[in-house]
Amino acid sequence: MIFLELNKMTGNQTPPSRPFDLLNDSIGKPVLVMLKGALSFRGTLKAFDVHMNIVLEEAEELDNNQVKTKYGKLILRGDNVILISP
Amino acid sequence: MIFLELNKMTGNQTPPSRPFDLLNDSIGKPVLVMLKGALSFRGTLKAFDVHMNIVLEEAEELDNNQVKTKYGKLILRGDNVILISP
Amino acid sequence: MIFLELNKMTGNQTPPSRPFDLLNDSIGKPVLVMLKGALSFRGTLKAFDVHMNIVLEEAEELDNNQVKTKYGKLILRGDNVILISP
Amino acid sequence: MIFLELNKMTGNQTPPSRPFDLLNDSIGKPVLVMLKGALSFRGTLKAFDVHMNIVLEEAEELDNNQVKTKYGKLILRGDNVILISP
Amino acid sequence: MIFLELNKMTGNQTPPSRPFDLLNDSIGKPVLVMLKGALSFRGTLKAFDVHMNIVLEEAEELDNNQVKTKYGKLILRGDNVILISP
Amino acid sequence: MIFLELNKMTGNQTPPSRPFDLLNDSIGKPVLVMLKGALSFRGTLKAFDVHMNIVLEEAEELDNNQVKTKYGKLILRGDNVILISP
Amino acid sequence: MIFLELNKMTGNQTPPSRPFDLLNDSIGKPVLVMLKGALSFRGTLKAFDVHMNIVLEEAEELDNNQVKTKYGKLILRGDNVILISP
Repeated sequence: MIFLELNKMTGNQTPPSRPFDLLNDSIGKPVLVMLKGALSFRGTLKAFDVHMNIVLEEAEELDNNQVKTKYGKLILRGDNVILISP
Repeated sequence: MIFLELNKMTGNQTPPSRPFDLLNDSIGKPVLVMLKGALSFRGTLKAFDVHMNIVLEEAEELDNNQVKTKYGKLILRGDNVILISP
Repeated sequence: MIFLELNKMTGNQTPPSRPFDLLNDSIGKPVLVMLKGALSFRGTLKAFDVHMNIVLEEAEELDNNQVKTKYGKLILRGDNVILISP
Repeated sequence: MIFLELNKMTGNQTPPSRPFDLLNDSIGKPVLVMLKGALSFRGTLKAFDVHMNIVLEEAEELDNNQVKTKYGKLILRGDNVILISP
Repeated sequence: MIFLELNKMTGNQTPPSRPFDLLNDSIGKPVLVMLKGALSFRGTLKAFDVHMNIVLEEAEELDNNQVKTKYGKLILRGDNVILISP
Repeated sequence: MIFLELNKMTGNQTPPSRPFDLLNDSIGKPVLVMLKGALSFRGTLKAFDVHMNIVLEEAEELDNNQVKTKYGKLILRGDNVILISP
Repeated sequence: MIFLELNKMTGNQTPPSRPFDLLNDSIGKPVLVMLKGALSFRGTLKAFDVHMNIVLEEAEELDNNQVKTKYGKLILRGDNVILISP
């Protein structure tokens, strides 16, 4: 069903991009990630998957835009993601 | 099952549109997006996918209709979407 | 499994209708939609899909049955729907 | 896997009924529906589907067993259902 | 994948039972069911399905182990189940 | 997709074990189970399934490490599991 | 659909890694795991699966970076994972 719906959409127009394309273009670049529960992280996007699980390097947890904790690498579970800003 | 149900529905009538058609028509136009947790964003709709993940450009986070934070591009995870107003 | 269960049910009786049939019959008519988080919207039902994503036109957000905000078109994500009253 | 498990179960015994059979038997009869968020509804069960989406007619929202709001028809999203009492 | 994992497990040992086997053995017997939201019900288990939807007969809602409300039959949506004690 | 990903992983290395293997090894042994909502249970692990539904025997609900309630057998729905400690 | 999307992504570039690759590389090494509900655990990563269920050994529950409880082995359900830091 989802497949058909997609076909219909791509039939109507060539979509200029998809959200995962933007993630893909952000590999190796700094991103801001907001998670549920008022958690914010900043770091270099190293990897992601279809669940929006994310790997950040040189990651920092932010609290009111201040660095709260520094991490080397970090896996963030996609489930909790609210927004990602490249 | 879902597939059959859909067939039955489309058999009954030609649906005038689907919610994702409206999203499709809003590509390149300004939209307002309300997320769970009393978060609101405004920006130009650049992309979306079947999970309702959304890419906004020239995005602004709103707080009581006031601009709180400005973002260049923004990926909003569909999971948290409450409403989208084109 | 779900498919078999459905077969069994439809074998037992011809179901008079399904919830999505009622939605289908309400296309073009005014509906009230209650969402999680004490949100209520009123408008003309323009479209829906199997996830219960809904498009309203001439939509109004209600607060204690008073109009709080007016929207032109509105996509409500089915995930948050509690009830729809045609 | 689920299919096999079911087979095993039905192999062990003929299940006297399934929850959806009870719903099926309640079509056209009054039911009480409790939803998450302390919401209760009473009405005549007109339709349901495998997601436990429910259509009630002559529906009433209850507040401490008092009628709070009267609705003609009502679609309740199965997602929020806690209990249904025929 | 799940299927393979199961095979591997059943290859390692014959599992003595599965949770749904215990439910199956409890058909016709009294059970206690705790739901999310601090709700407890007691009754005779009449039916269940793979979603852990449950039918109780001669059901009672408990409040601090006191009977709060009596129901004839009751469908409890599996989604909200925390524990079932036969 | 998940299947391919798994293949890739098992291609990279022979995984020493999987979480469900540890559960499997704990059958017949005492375990501690923490659930969402600050609930803790202790008992002998009798059975589990792929949803992490769990059967405990000689189960005890704990409150601040004190026994609050004793149960014979107990089915805990996997959905609510936070941790299991063998 | 997901499969196609993946193909498209891997067609665009060879992804340097995936989040589960980082988990794989962390087997046998100390990790920090934050769960929903303000729970933190530290231990040696022994195993994981596609649901991000995790087995820790010599695990410690932390409270404000202080050791609160020591566990031998621990299964953490992936559902509740917010972040994993190798």
